Amino acid sequence: MTINDPNVLAEVEAVFAIYEAALTSNDVVTLDSLFRQSPQTIRYGVAENLYGYDEIAAFRSARSPVGLERMLDRTVITTYGQDMATANTLFRRASMPGKVGRQSQIWVKFAEGWRVVSAHVSLIAE
Amino acid sequence: MTINDPNVLAEVEAVFAIYEAALTSNDVVTLDSLFRQSPQTIRYGVAENLYGYDEIAAFRSARSPVGLERMLDRTVITTYGQDMATANTLFRRASMPGKVGRQSQIWVKFAEGWRVVSAHVSLIAE
Repeated sequence: MTINDPNVLAEVEAVFAIYEAALTSNDVVTLDSLFRQSPQTIRYGVAENLYGYDEIAAFRSARSPVGLERMLDRTVITTYGQDMATANTLFRRASMPGKVGRQSQIWVKFAEGWRVVSAHVSLIAE
Repeated sequence: MTINDPNVLAEVEAVFAIYEAALTSNDVVTLDSLFRQSPQTIRYGVAENLYGYDEIAAFRSARSPVGLERMLDRTVITTYGQDMATANTLFRRASMPGKVGRQSQIWVKFAEGWRVVSAHVSLIAE
């Protein structure tokens, strides 16, 4: 298994950047398109546990678009083989002083492209 | 890509169970053996952000062995292809009433066996 094949890594870095831009601009259509449409897709959020694509999409639609800007820190993307990657990053927001966020994503490459199949976001004290 | 191939799923379910038994009995040797020995391995814990196998092993060694018993809930293991799986579960402990834990793991199969390459554990209010 090749770890961090440069071509695969470049693909995941590109889709990770698209996701981040969509998140901070609350581009719900793009966010939804980057999660795998499956009941098996899971997202543990800052205050919610979402099982399945439908619950994740419903959460996105209902989310406040205010204050989503953030600064990333210690972002590490690692690819395993040709069609799987982990993306982990810390993040901070002006609206949450003293706290640091952690975001973990698993990306898998399907026929339709790279999709998140599992995500976990949480906040802790700095 | 085959999702949830029964043989692959059985392998990951078995190693997930070994991990859980080791966690609740604070079997540090087994826990360490199930994380990939690499600087790329990441574990975001309840109160700590650990980058690389060495930081994770140091955390395990220093951890209090008291009160690790827990009840799992809504555990979902999903395999993608022959060598990658996600394992997500909620958990509760008698010592943390009103809170629910979330644990996300990514397992990858290497020559040496299935190993966690990324994990994220957090607590939120129920």
